[in-house]
Amino acid sequence: MSFTVEATDGAARAGVLRTAHGDIHTPAFMPVGTKGTVKTLLPAEVRSLGADVILGNTYHLHFRPGEDVIEELGGLHAFTGWDGPILTDSGGFQVFSLRDTLARVDDDGVTFRSVYDGSEERLTPERVAEIQCRLGSDIAMCLDICPPADVSLREHEEAVRRTQLWAERQVDAPRAPGQLRFGIAQGGTDPTLRTRSIEGIIGLPFDGYALGGLAVGESRVEMLDTVGWAAPLLPAERPRYFMGLGDAEGILEVIARGIDMFDCVLPTRTARTGSALTARGRLNLRNARFARDPGPLEDGCGCPACAGFSRAFVRHLVNQQELLGLRLLTLHNLWFTLRLTAGAREAITRGAFDAYRADALALLTAGLEEER
Amino acid sequence: MSFTVEATDGAARAGVLRTAHGDIHTPAFMPVGTKGTVKTLLPAEVRSLGADVILGNTYHLHFRPGEDVIEELGGLHAFTGWDGPILTDSGGFQVFSLRDTLARVDDDGVTFRSVYDGSEERLTPERVAEIQCRLGSDIAMCLDICPPADVSLREHEEAVRRTQLWAERQVDAPRAPGQLRFGIAQGGTDPTLRTRSIEGIIGLPFDGYALGGLAVGESRVEMLDTVGWAAPLLPAERPRYFMGLGDAEGILEVIARGIDMFDCVLPTRTARTGSALTARGRLNLRNARFARDPGPLEDGCGCPACAGFSRAFVRHLVNQQELLGLRLLTLHNLWFTLRLTAGAREAITRGAFDAYRADALALLTAGLEEER
Repeated sequence: MSFTVEATDGAARAGVLRTAHGDIHTPAFMPVGTKGTVKTLLPAEVRSLGADVILGNTYHLHFRPGEDVIEELGGLHAFTGWDGPILTDSGGFQVFSLRDTLARVDDDGVTFRSVYDGSEERLTPERVAEIQCRLGSDIAMCLDICPPADVSLREHEEAVRRTQLWAERQVDAPRAPGQLRFGIAQGGTDPTLRTRSIEGIIGLPFDGYALGGLAVGESRVEMLDTVGWAAPLLPAERPRYFMGLGDAEGILEVIARGIDMFDCVLPTRTARTGSALTARGRLNLRNARFARDPGPLEDGCGCPACAGFSRAFVRHLVNQQELLGLRLLTLHNLWFTLRLTAGAREAITRGAFDAYRADALALLTAGLEEER
Repeated sequence: MSFTVEATDGAARAGVLRTAHGDIHTPAFMPVGTKGTVKTLLPAEVRSLGADVILGNTYHLHFRPGEDVIEELGGLHAFTGWDGPILTDSGGFQVFSLRDTLARVDDDGVTFRSVYDGSEERLTPERVAEIQCRLGSDIAMCLDICPPADVSLREHEEAVRRTQLWAERQVDAPRAPGQLRFGIAQGGTDPTLRTRSIEGIIGLPFDGYALGGLAVGESRVEMLDTVGWAAPLLPAERPRYFMGLGDAEGILEVIARGIDMFDCVLPTRTARTGSALTARGRLNLRNARFARDPGPLEDGCGCPACAGFSRAFVRHLVNQQELLGLRLLTLHNLWFTLRLTAGAREAITRGAFDAYRADALALLTAGLEEER
């Protein structure tokens, strides 16, 4: 048994997921290292920010540098220098979201053109399992079909059907030593389809279960409503992963509904647009009001950026397109997101998660109101 | 007296320059932090690579964010987080090398348009001293006229004349507490003009003396010949600074001729083109032969990049335009350059500099021959 729930508080859970490369304390935010690096950061920095696990991207790593190169160099951990747990997605999200490169989907798999050189490629459940086996990740996600929220019910139904067919083939495919494999339920926000997908996927012996196909265009209310009734349908003794979520409000709300893991490019991408995440909302450092501001990005923050640098300096770096500016904002934004999540874990352990969430949401709301 | 020569070996010298923010051990390579940051690196990383002093750029800092902002934030050290010595150039090199923005030079100063917004600006010796005073650098360079090597003798002569006029005005201008000020000799490779300029500048009570207007288009042989007879004309009891030099061969050859300090964007700029500096020459990491190379950038190197990452990984990062790739190469290239210089210092102290230089040059030459 690789997952232990250590405390619960309402639907919220605190646990530990054991992997071949170390423990993941849940709730866990997973920084995204798309191409084998969390952008701008050294692995040791990512670790020092408090991350237990990072996410790698099977689609991109398959094309550049290729799983053969990574395998020859000793696998994804040795190649990238990150020796902690790594979760790899299936590549399906990229294939289905880069819609103009999508050629054909059938019950066997999906054919598409590479965004790198236009060459035709095919992914099947077996092929995705093989690539992830060679990458040597600790958690491998199943190939699924992730449609945008606004497609027809018919299309959602077809996504659920094929996702199930593929999961049944991938569940028993060869895997790297110690590699865990997670299944993914689809079905959008439709109760019948989502329930059907969950029931089908949890009927297969995966090490964890994910809700896919949410935060893809539906409203926040619909999303949270769906997580609220869908998460409890997933087995309590397995980790529950909400794919693609990383804003403060979203994190607190899905934890409250029983989710254990989540990932998003939001903290790192927001950094690269020149903005800092804070308890009171976002700061756009390009704003002229920060030009002479001697304070840190966020008062009381202990991150490496706030420990040594002013808003005025970060603004100067961002405006001058100095890479150090992106790096300082990346450090801060990941620290913020990881601390928020660690704080939630601690509050759950104390049985005080409701107050923790309410306080954090009140601060965020106050910040938004000030900005108006 | 702020400079002490601790050892000599032939014309080569090992010394210590004391500044308000710490000691500079010479020979010293000064990494360039044009806009207040050595590109991609935190100040603590620059320090850990072994740099004693960094260079800041008066031209760029004057326009962005402006010396008023930097002064208000506590000066360049507090603003950037680098608490060691900082040398600031005068801005003259940018004004005269960005030739299509140059409007008018007269005996009083120079008028030009800002590369940032095209606004008209004027620099005079007094103005440059004032900007550097407000920046609070430890070593402030004089405003000089630095022509390219291939201008007429007449133009070189005019540069020498005005550089002298300006030095006579700047030498007594107000300065920041403890700030040292260096004069600059011009005159290209012409013995008469260069000697005239040196004699004029060393007649003024500067804390150090620089050779400017070399490595600006003349041949390497002409340049080294000029340094060879010009450096000994500078006072032995003051630091001698060769402006704008940072390749391995050049560093060894100017040290051999009695130079104490030098700076160049070469190590950091080379990093951003995807190349590593090594004892056997440059490696272009984009080269396909590194695709599966598990070795470090340079065998036996102790830099943070070589300690943890393979050529194959760095190549992947460079090819994918991941900022971490530029950062790893910047770390390595600065480490290489700083170690080469520290090794020279140590060899001078032992009286073994000739052998050190000969061995290093032989390795470089062997590397170049292998590449052919």
